[in-house]
Amino acid sequence: MPYTRFESELIVRPDDIDMNNHVHNSKYLDYVLAARYDQMGRCYGMPMDDFLKNGWNWYQKAFHIEFKRALTLADRVIVQTWLDSFEKADVKVGFQIFKKEPRKVAAEGYFISTMIDMKTGRALVIPPEIIEHYTQYTG
Amino acid sequence: MPYTRFESELIVRPDDIDMNNHVHNSKYLDYVLAARYDQMGRCYGMPMDDFLKNGWNWYQKAFHIEFKRALTLADRVIVQTWLDSFEKADVKVGFQIFKKEPRKVAAEGYFISTMIDMKTGRALVIPPEIIEHYTQYTG
Amino acid sequence: MPYTRFESELIVRPDDIDMNNHVHNSKYLDYVLAARYDQMGRCYGMPMDDFLKNGWNWYQKAFHIEFKRALTLADRVIVQTWLDSFEKADVKVGFQIFKKEPRKVAAEGYFISTMIDMKTGRALVIPPEIIEHYTQYTG
Amino acid sequence: MPYTRFESELIVRPDDIDMNNHVHNSKYLDYVLAARYDQMGRCYGMPMDDFLKNGWNWYQKAFHIEFKRALTLADRVIVQTWLDSFEKADVKVGFQIFKKEPRKVAAEGYFISTMIDMKTGRALVIPPEIIEHYTQYTG
Repeated sequence: MPYTRFESELIVRPDDIDMNNHVHNSKYLDYVLAARYDQMGRCYGMPMDDFLKNGWNWYQKAFHIEFKRALTLADRVIVQTWLDSFEKADVKVGFQIFKKEPRKVAAEGYFISTMIDMKTGRALVIPPEIIEHYTQYTG
Repeated sequence: MPYTRFESELIVRPDDIDMNNHVHNSKYLDYVLAARYDQMGRCYGMPMDDFLKNGWNWYQKAFHIEFKRALTLADRVIVQTWLDSFEKADVKVGFQIFKKEPRKVAAEGYFISTMIDMKTGRALVIPPEIIEHYTQYTG
Repeated sequence: MPYTRFESELIVRPDDIDMNNHVHNSKYLDYVLAARYDQMGRCYGMPMDDFLKNGWNWYQKAFHIEFKRALTLADRVIVQTWLDSFEKADVKVGFQIFKKEPRKVAAEGYFISTMIDMKTGRALVIPPEIIEHYTQYTG
Repeated sequence: MPYTRFESELIVRPDDIDMNNHVHNSKYLDYVLAARYDQMGRCYGMPMDDFLKNGWNWYQKAFHIEFKRALTLADRVIVQTWLDSFEKADVKVGFQIFKKEPRKVAAEGYFISTMIDMKTGRALVIPPEIIEHYTQYTG
């Protein structure tokens, strides 16, 4: 069963807009991270702080995005993210960014994050209880 | 009678956080502008686009802020703004930024914007009908 | 013959640093665009403005990045970019981001940009004289 | 004798540009902080890290800026800063931001920073040896 897709709604801020009057490319990445941060606590019940308190952190290993449609200052933005797969220290997360009204895909892609042991700074195989926790959120 | 104070609520995004784990100083300015943009349409019924369509724009002339309390990624932010005074091409707008829970002042200050005629790029005395429109929002 | 690799040197600004005391992920994308903008004029003799004056623009279609090593506020950054290939309206550009001292790869990837006719907003097959111009820069 | 004025040169990055095709207002604040960070080490021989290693930090207390002239993507930027005065835990720093060519004032203002003891999070009267160190840089 595929993992559940969760959504966060974001506003576009004037400082997100670039010389083309569109949301600047790199802000899409920021929107995805903002949504993910929101969903870690609100949707999965395992906020970022829980990881940090355990001495764990997530570093981004890769980010891939395909831009489909410009977003403007007047838009509201929906960011949908979902777990795709786990492999050793890595989790792959898929995302779609939508213009809210009318709802249309603005961008889509994935990122891979690596779990880090902050004491050593090294990658850490994701503990099975973390993966099990996330496995509740499927279908 | 003083002008009405309007409020906008904003989330803090991870990209707003700096090396001290606080909202970065310059983002407070972005929060104020985001709130103002929101309130121009939603609260005053005169969105930024109405100005642009008339060939008018607002350029910032000055910005003054006093930081009172750090904001963190876990906070929600309330930005209150109000009209302070008009003088020729300039409007002075006051603001307070609040940490939402518990509600405490995070920063306060003002900015001055100058109305610009986009054809000439020059300052333009604010038309009386604009000031009159805003005068509805007092008390 | 492969296209020439050009380099731009950038400083890290305090506002680029995130809560982990590293350059924030999305800033890598900004560094790549800053380098590309610099190199369009300085290295290829065909600055962005030349495109804009012709009513052309470049919109990003995709961006892919793999993070290899954190950058900090103390680092100087070298961004190397090169043309990879052209296809219809698209150009694929490769990049590597280096920590300057000691020189180590911080990230690498590619982006694809689409040439846009600003009058219609539509993709435009890249004119052969543009491709020919770039073909000078090989080896 | 007034304190020495030091200068840093910065490039404008595409992500600094806003919907008006100018450097976005809040980026001026970022430019000032970037220049100050550069000058602390390069000009005063007392880099930010020296403060952090002692358990000290600087938090911004206030920022005031007057915008005089727009900066664009084609500009190089000179940021001049100087010590204005010390009072208890606070230092007031003046700044001018210049468009490099032709050299014209783009903005000017000041900020006040408070020295913080990171263990307690409280303001700390600036030690006399710090003030004495800075007193070398006058005239």
